[in-house]
Amino acid sequence: MSIELTILGSSSATPIYDRFPSCQHLNMLDRHMLIDCGEGAQMQMRRYKLKKTRLHHIYISHVHADHILGLPGLLFSLNLQNRTEPLHLFAPDSLFEIIDLFFKHSDTTLRYELIRHVTQNHEKELLYEDSLIRVFSFPLYHRVPTTGFLFEENHHLKKLNVEACRRFHIPFTFYNDIKKGKDFVNPENGSVILNETLTYSNNLPLRYAYCSDTRFDERVIEEVMGVDMLYHESTFLHDKLARATETMHSTALEAATVAKEAKVKKLLIGHFSSRYDDLSVLLREARTLFNPTELATEGRRFSMDEFAQAENY
Amino acid sequence: MSIELTILGSSSATPIYDRFPSCQHLNMLDRHMLIDCGEGAQMQMRRYKLKKTRLHHIYISHVHADHILGLPGLLFSLNLQNRTEPLHLFAPDSLFEIIDLFFKHSDTTLRYELIRHVTQNHEKELLYEDSLIRVFSFPLYHRVPTTGFLFEENHHLKKLNVEACRRFHIPFTFYNDIKKGKDFVNPENGSVILNETLTYSNNLPLRYAYCSDTRFDERVIEEVMGVDMLYHESTFLHDKLARATETMHSTALEAATVAKEAKVKKLLIGHFSSRYDDLSVLLREARTLFNPTELATEGRRFSMDEFAQAENY
Repeated sequence: MSIELTILGSSSATPIYDRFPSCQHLNMLDRHMLIDCGEGAQMQMRRYKLKKTRLHHIYISHVHADHILGLPGLLFSLNLQNRTEPLHLFAPDSLFEIIDLFFKHSDTTLRYELIRHVTQNHEKELLYEDSLIRVFSFPLYHRVPTTGFLFEENHHLKKLNVEACRRFHIPFTFYNDIKKGKDFVNPENGSVILNETLTYSNNLPLRYAYCSDTRFDERVIEEVMGVDMLYHESTFLHDKLARATETMHSTALEAATVAKEAKVKKLLIGHFSSRYDDLSVLLREARTLFNPTELATEGRRFSMDEFAQAENY
Repeated sequence: MSIELTILGSSSATPIYDRFPSCQHLNMLDRHMLIDCGEGAQMQMRRYKLKKTRLHHIYISHVHADHILGLPGLLFSLNLQNRTEPLHLFAPDSLFEIIDLFFKHSDTTLRYELIRHVTQNHEKELLYEDSLIRVFSFPLYHRVPTTGFLFEENHHLKKLNVEACRRFHIPFTFYNDIKKGKDFVNPENGSVILNETLTYSNNLPLRYAYCSDTRFDERVIEEVMGVDMLYHESTFLHDKLARATETMHSTALEAATVAKEAKVKKLLIGHFSSRYDDLSVLLREARTLFNPTELATEGRRFSMDEFAQAENY
């Protein structure tokens, strides 16, 4: 699987109707990440059979209760499980201050290294890069400093056209070289098959953007332009626009506007106000403007794997 | 119902097997209280149909993750629900420091008054008293400052012998005076029925003691002497005594020893280590020494209402 997103919580601050606050699990090319970490995150990971021990990164958008309260317990559990691998935590500096005070008063010393990355919300920033993925933060517009996150494949490797490779009887052992951009040279007769024949030309990296809590803002559209999948909060229906403005949240119609203007492929909406017992009203409103919208409800999994076949190699 | 205890969580720090960390709900003469507040407390209250809005008091035994992480979210939810009634919070000072920092960074101002009661763990202390209940703290012996809690009826009122009242055709309107200790004087003929005929002589206040995290210690036995119901942590089986000693926890056999020596009526054990998939082994061990033991597992309700009939008036 190339990229799989699992929704662990998508309720706003008052958790009701068995909905948990914001938390998502993203498996991107075997990098296992949490995005926000609302209360109950570790219970939800267990429920959906996602191993805590495999976590590499945690990204926190802002320091509001419904986005962070699952974090100290999770960090503490990993300690009890004798984790020794480092864990990357990307968050505003105020979160680290809270965690440090908590660890001090609970007399906790982590056995593993917590690698601290302090985020800022003034401008887009590359937070993390390795051979397979890159992660950016970008400003959102909420009541406290808040960032969105953009996760993208890092294309050092091209995507194999497996069908073409099979047609030309390319041995598996050459697949890695071809993904690195090399032509195939037949070792037996020296004949050449050009790399462009064996890889996809439309080789754009898959991208997932996460906009946790934000007032509708056109600058967000620029940041998420053309992504394959966008999560955008939709706390209210548009008839509650005044309330959305006051609390610096967005409506379902506004989320759909961002998705449409940014020409994204798919929109997930979440961070639902507890006033909505039936979430389908939010889905319907968003779909009036942007049809490929889905509800980011607990337990749902969304894949971005149009090249899944190629990715198996 | 005189006193009803609902277990919302009784797992130790690593929550597994769908067990939640420490949290109990105590309804004592219509005073609604939480005792400890582990992660997920508000979700568990919802699951077991306990109204957050009715909460009067929260008691926190110590500042370890599995006893406090549900608190900030709960306080925040109450704020969103426009609570205006004051809420009493009894906790070590370090907890208030963490909460204050959290509220500062999340830009939260509570609409209701949080009445702060700082606990100490050097000696027994009366924390709260009103016309119906009294609550004490007493020292426990754990890795950070920790207190147990003792909840008891405050007998300004005597307990009616409803059967006797009916036999003598006492009108309902006199019940309150009789509970206050007055004799019944028949307004029609001046005949007197003595108060002791109409109330229970064996009128000891019901008492519930909570010992969250503690190394086995004989001083605890003194504090919980003769209570009607005792919750005592039983993190391990006795074959893990070395581990219990190291982590300053108790074994099931030690919890049973406290219950037996203190001559309590009933023992509840909890704070189970995640190593025990099947909790019955802990129950069996405790019962070898103290038979009236029960597992404090999620959702179980325990009543102390031997005078329930009288309490209806």
